[in-house]
Amino acid sequence: MDRQRSARRIEEDIETLAGADYTLSDEAIRRYAYTQQYRNTLDYFSRELEAIGFTVEEDAVGNFFARNRPKGEPAFGVGSHCDSNRNGGRYDGTMGVVTALEVCRLSTEEGLDLPLQLISFLEEEGSGFGQMLLGSRIISQRVAEDDLKQKFLAIDDGRSFWEHAVAAGYSPDRWRECARVLDGLTGWIEMHIEQARVLQDTGNRIGLVTAIAGYVHADVVVHGRGDHAGATPMDLRLDPTLPMAETIVELEQLARAAGEGTVGTVGEIEVDPGIINAIAARLRFSLDIRGPVDDLYRGVAHDIAAFAEQAAERRGMRAEFTERQSLPATPMDDKIVAALETAARTTGEPFIRMHSGAAHDTMCVADRVPTAMVFVPCVDGISHHPAEDADPDDAALAAEIILNAVQALESA
Amino acid sequence: MDRQRSARRIEEDIETLAGADYTLSDEAIRRYAYTQQYRNTLDYFSRELEAIGFTVEEDAVGNFFARNRPKGEPAFGVGSHCDSNRNGGRYDGTMGVVTALEVCRLSTEEGLDLPLQLISFLEEEGSGFGQMLLGSRIISQRVAEDDLKQKFLAIDDGRSFWEHAVAAGYSPDRWRECARVLDGLTGWIEMHIEQARVLQDTGNRIGLVTAIAGYVHADVVVHGRGDHAGATPMDLRLDPTLPMAETIVELEQLARAAGEGTVGTVGEIEVDPGIINAIAARLRFSLDIRGPVDDLYRGVAHDIAAFAEQAAERRGMRAEFTERQSLPATPMDDKIVAALETAARTTGEPFIRMHSGAAHDTMCVADRVPTAMVFVPCVDGISHHPAEDADPDDAALAAEIILNAVQALESA
Repeated sequence: MDRQRSARRIEEDIETLAGADYTLSDEAIRRYAYTQQYRNTLDYFSRELEAIGFTVEEDAVGNFFARNRPKGEPAFGVGSHCDSNRNGGRYDGTMGVVTALEVCRLSTEEGLDLPLQLISFLEEEGSGFGQMLLGSRIISQRVAEDDLKQKFLAIDDGRSFWEHAVAAGYSPDRWRECARVLDGLTGWIEMHIEQARVLQDTGNRIGLVTAIAGYVHADVVVHGRGDHAGATPMDLRLDPTLPMAETIVELEQLARAAGEGTVGTVGEIEVDPGIINAIAARLRFSLDIRGPVDDLYRGVAHDIAAFAEQAAERRGMRAEFTERQSLPATPMDDKIVAALETAARTTGEPFIRMHSGAAHDTMCVADRVPTAMVFVPCVDGISHHPAEDADPDDAALAAEIILNAVQALESA
Repeated sequence: MDRQRSARRIEEDIETLAGADYTLSDEAIRRYAYTQQYRNTLDYFSRELEAIGFTVEEDAVGNFFARNRPKGEPAFGVGSHCDSNRNGGRYDGTMGVVTALEVCRLSTEEGLDLPLQLISFLEEEGSGFGQMLLGSRIISQRVAEDDLKQKFLAIDDGRSFWEHAVAAGYSPDRWRECARVLDGLTGWIEMHIEQARVLQDTGNRIGLVTAIAGYVHADVVVHGRGDHAGATPMDLRLDPTLPMAETIVELEQLARAAGEGTVGTVGEIEVDPGIINAIAARLRFSLDIRGPVDDLYRGVAHDIAAFAEQAAERRGMRAEFTERQSLPATPMDDKIVAALETAARTTGEPFIRMHSGAAHDTMCVADRVPTAMVFVPCVDGISHHPAEDADPDDAALAAEIILNAVQALESA
């Protein structure tokens, strides 16, 4: 296979889809469901896929799919999403769809004619309606009709997802039929940029995902007592920054001790009143605790909640831990990962097995279809930002590995 | 002396000055320089003081003073400020002027005829022009003419202090003459609510201030690396919340170890980008470090700056310590404090020597005049808030103590 030709085509696709017709912003990639720019993007993929003999369709809300076999016949799924976050780069999602397109091209050109179905999921980033993985959650029926009608509202104008879908010519009343997009899939592989620096820092070009991390998102509120910072002796204060500080230090210890990819982060801190000469009356900090092993990260979440409560109590204060949401880890399919590993080894290029710390549409596919993911590096781990950068050569390598893995799986 | 009568009068004064003519807000006390409500407040004190034979004047910018001796003759100073912060209570400042007025009344009624000068300083709270202690800083010449003309701008309309002073009928071009307000003062005692809970928590009715704390206000910026909270392993992160947390814990240790009233507080924390699933790229936190002993709190400031820098460095990050401003501690005059102590002991009421953690106009008087301060409790230490509460009985006790101390000092 001509990997340089693949890289060139992938680069051209990415370049095209970064053009003015495909983004709402001059300074970033910004495209989301039911905008003209998103429509143009799907139309681009339609033309390219029809040119190689694929039949293109969309489901009742706008998930895009294309097959080179009649509906009902088995096929292997490849794809990702082509919406972006509101201040995004060229690669997150889109490079995965472009690489899936390249897999379809190679299969045709090389005369393999593998049974393939490309999917581009709607609204992975939540830029339109504030709901991440929306298209794949509709496919996996992880939403309620009332959410679509009442709760999921457009960031731009506050109108419902349902209204917008109807206005764009879709039939959201048939949303339950979206589940059929996965009918007949014998497997699924999503390629995505890594969005972190593990591949770059370890010198690998390919990451074979063995599991997508589960997570607990939570908040801790510490109730202190707002006093004058100058006039209140150290012994008479109830300063909530102290239990918070102790909890931040402990979280690092607990996550490291849990190991196996467990991570813990405090990303939000809100101090009330938040002025230099006042001891805080109250503060809130967020917890993002993840890992590929449910018992481990859930153990950290449990232990840090207890620690924060005790740290506050030791100082005469009260801390409240409140879970926002949680999702279990999603293991990838051993057979598909093994096929990818064989294909990767054959190329002689450096690769590793790793887990995904970030969430992906593949989590919603894995319920019904054996799945795996392939990561390629992005520079310095920067993502969700116009400076996002990834190498088409790596994407071409991924396309070759995916093609060879699918071929091996289909001929097994 | 009839302490109950004093308490009743003080209560009536406070009640009057909380009325609609004296505050810009229905829900709080809000009055500041050059408003009609502030004018009404000065006029109230004028009437009360003229009624007992005092001659009232204002200096070139609006500091208010009243004497029962001709200018040039020695007198003992008493007073505080009668402006409020924008969402203030009835007692901060105003109760000090009211108590000074009561000292003047008692001196007259009791036939003592002590040589007295009451001062009410302009703009202690900075509600008009964002500049704390403005009137007393003008008196002590701790401002530059350019500040008054160009830099000190009204919060309400952005026009300069100078313009507003002229519009209100004052002569800011003669601001240097304001220094004369302190001419001939043989001493100065300011009564103020404590604004903390030391008196309440220790069961004392009177605090005799031995020093006003000095302080260092500073910021620490920690430069981390913004990465995906899920996708970045613990070993590959540069998370600035960790050196911050370690610094917060260390600050408490250092302040306690320094002792003698040294305190340290982190009141502001600003996390960038501050979202749950992102490791912070950068954060800033403030430091408020104070105490009555310059070497001690300055030592803490020095040590915590070094600690923060090292804590960041140990983790491969960089922390920058930047001082915003600092002011040395102001010791009170031993002789005046001793006279107050004798007078307090005579009453049989519980009192303590303490320092003031908060700044006061008295800091600017102390350059030229032997000074002291008397604190009375405020409920739960709440201040700068409509819920601020203090007991007129305590103020009446303070008035008696101040009167007796001044009498003793003048007859010595």
